[in-house]
Amino acid sequence: MGPYGYLGKSMQATQERLRRDLEENAEFGALEDVDGHGRTVLTGTDANRDARERLVDRFEDAGLCVTVDSVGTIVGRWISESADPSAAPIATGSHLDSVPSGGIFDGPLGVYGGLEAVRTLQDAGCEPGRPIDVVCFTEEEGGRFGNGLLGSSVAIGDRSPADALAFEDESGIPLELALEQIGFRGDGVTDASEWDAFLELHVEQGQQLEQHGDAVGVVSTISGITHCYLDVSGEADHAGSTSMRDRADALAAASEIVLKLEDGAKEQVRERSTSAVATVGQVEVTPNATNVVPGAVRLGVDIRDVSADSIERLVSRLEASARRVEHQRPVETTIERPYDVAPAPMAPRCRDALESASTSVGFEPISMHSGAVHDTMNVAKVTDAGLLFAPSVDGISHNPKEWTDWEDCATAATVLAEAIEDLAA
Amino acid sequence: MGPYGYLGKSMQATQERLRRDLEENAEFGALEDVDGHGRTVLTGTDANRDARERLVDRFEDAGLCVTVDSVGTIVGRWISESADPSAAPIATGSHLDSVPSGGIFDGPLGVYGGLEAVRTLQDAGCEPGRPIDVVCFTEEEGGRFGNGLLGSSVAIGDRSPADALAFEDESGIPLELALEQIGFRGDGVTDASEWDAFLELHVEQGQQLEQHGDAVGVVSTISGITHCYLDVSGEADHAGSTSMRDRADALAAASEIVLKLEDGAKEQVRERSTSAVATVGQVEVTPNATNVVPGAVRLGVDIRDVSADSIERLVSRLEASARRVEHQRPVETTIERPYDVAPAPMAPRCRDALESASTSVGFEPISMHSGAVHDTMNVAKVTDAGLLFAPSVDGISHNPKEWTDWEDCATAATVLAEAIEDLAA
Repeated sequence: MGPYGYLGKSMQATQERLRRDLEENAEFGALEDVDGHGRTVLTGTDANRDARERLVDRFEDAGLCVTVDSVGTIVGRWISESADPSAAPIATGSHLDSVPSGGIFDGPLGVYGGLEAVRTLQDAGCEPGRPIDVVCFTEEEGGRFGNGLLGSSVAIGDRSPADALAFEDESGIPLELALEQIGFRGDGVTDASEWDAFLELHVEQGQQLEQHGDAVGVVSTISGITHCYLDVSGEADHAGSTSMRDRADALAAASEIVLKLEDGAKEQVRERSTSAVATVGQVEVTPNATNVVPGAVRLGVDIRDVSADSIERLVSRLEASARRVEHQRPVETTIERPYDVAPAPMAPRCRDALESASTSVGFEPISMHSGAVHDTMNVAKVTDAGLLFAPSVDGISHNPKEWTDWEDCATAATVLAEAIEDLAA
Repeated sequence: MGPYGYLGKSMQATQERLRRDLEENAEFGALEDVDGHGRTVLTGTDANRDARERLVDRFEDAGLCVTVDSVGTIVGRWISESADPSAAPIATGSHLDSVPSGGIFDGPLGVYGGLEAVRTLQDAGCEPGRPIDVVCFTEEEGGRFGNGLLGSSVAIGDRSPADALAFEDESGIPLELALEQIGFRGDGVTDASEWDAFLELHVEQGQQLEQHGDAVGVVSTISGITHCYLDVSGEADHAGSTSMRDRADALAAASEIVLKLEDGAKEQVRERSTSAVATVGQVEVTPNATNVVPGAVRLGVDIRDVSADSIERLVSRLEASARRVEHQRPVETTIERPYDVAPAPMAPRCRDALESASTSVGFEPISMHSGAVHDTMNVAKVTDAGLLFAPSVDGISHNPKEWTDWEDCATAATVLAEAIEDLAA
């Protein structure tokens, strides 16, 4: 093998360099006394400032030209000696913010993996014909300002910088002030539509790769999502003096709906679409006292799939189970549907580039959907986009127990480098 | 009819006098802008002081000798001219405190109904041979100091005055200070075991009387209660990236348990015990976010019946459904049972006295259980006790919509007067 040889390929990411980047980044906002390696890095906090400043340093160490836009999205641009500086760039990236008590890979792997891909290209003497942008989007998780995918929504023109900067956290601090306080309120707007293509590397957050024993997943489609809020209204009554016959128990009614939705999703998986999921994640019971028959229950429902038809079928199922329970019990139900995002198919040329790169690196790529949303979902609206997954141990994420083996991180960065070289050719 | 004639009986409570007492009492802690007539009267508040002071005035107006014990329980004693002052008294009473946003009858009807019964006896020229005590117990609802039936627990010797006075509210104020602040920290202890018998008049808080079209219910047994807390532990996971197959959804598992418990209670009602009730009133979901598969659920369960066997059967049912769900899903369950109160049968002589009095007043008494607890449940441990119900419109209580017609209030007070006369003979 030559200096970058690995199963006969021309380049290889440096595992130790990528690992050092991720481990040093994991120090910012690190959690003490947890099982695993957790961090809390909310936008505009000291931990976020430290993480951003270090990223800028690493970008500059690698010769990237750094810009910060008005909502704090950071771009490091590498223009090789052979590149046409005015050509549409190939971009790659993810985010450095986390959920509260999140893991150390969700986000940072895509940012530092992107940087490692650039360094790998540089080490291999590659000179892409287009600029290569490594991007760190602001507030992907929505952990502080309540709106996930915030930076990318501005970069695709779905939201004005002014609207984004006006979002406030729970204590009324606007994003603008939070960014100013950490020195990352920049100028202008990153324009994702100017990118020739965008690739994001992310941890899978599921168990498909692990179950297949593969190290590389190439996403075909990011599932669409709908959120429904279902209110069940019964009658709050004394748990002792109200006979079983005289009750209008909103919780018992809601429990039927929870189980019917789960049944519906499992049936959908068996018969129509293996990627369908439906979750009741949130329950608010009123008055929620052990000795009072529940008078009202609100369920927060999350339904996702790669096809809009499949999502509609599950919403219909939810509506039907609510109607059935209204006929069978003295309760009333209402359903709101405030949130709807269409499924996002990845661009064939990005999928092809990622799959070819995987094969070249020696891994048969697994074609899979993404049930989680990522900034790529936004970027796909305005340019060709692709999403690469590294395996998550036990599928755990948003949790200090989140883990991806360092070798898998490096393999993914190598695949990313080869795919970028391919797209930039 | 003579001056006290009513269907040929010898005495009759004065509806207007009782109504005025209850309406004036309802002014203390009265809620504005509610549907109905609500009040919040927590122990040791200004509203509670005003309500207590007015009660003392009304007791004294009727010639009762008032004492206040060390935990604030108020007793008004009437000794007729023919009475042996040293004989064991017949006592009757209830409480003036309320739940937050409670109704105007729950408690006050039993206190002022007791006073009205005494005045009715006086008006009729009755001279009972025993002293008659009208009692107002402190903190029956547990709305401020978290321990319901507090005054009666001291009066029966289940709790020392010192322990009771040390209970603190949420801001750390002990009962002792709260009582001192309103001038109702008295001396000594009311000793319920010295009473020859005790009768409590209360609103039903259910719909049995209304459904039967009857005005008077005589309680056979106060249901026992057990509280169980059932924890279901699954795995919190990403609602998008975790396939239906890979989930350990604690809420879906808990929903099965909720429905199985409801089924079990309904079956028990059909086949064994019509008074059985089981309620899941409280649900805590962790992390309780719409886009996260629930990792843990805690259910607060209330089970009641007039027989301890029936309660045990329902607890076994709960345990069995928890075991079943553990076999069918990748979850674990644990059950705690921190609260257990045995069923309290009422004394035959008190039931007989109330039933005879009802018949005499012209109403066929309905024999029924009480699913709600009352101070009588405590008093029944140390002396003969009986419980009389007046109808609750729509069974609503602990709510500003709680209502009992004034005529029904007066009828119940008349029944109470006749029963007291009978027992004191």
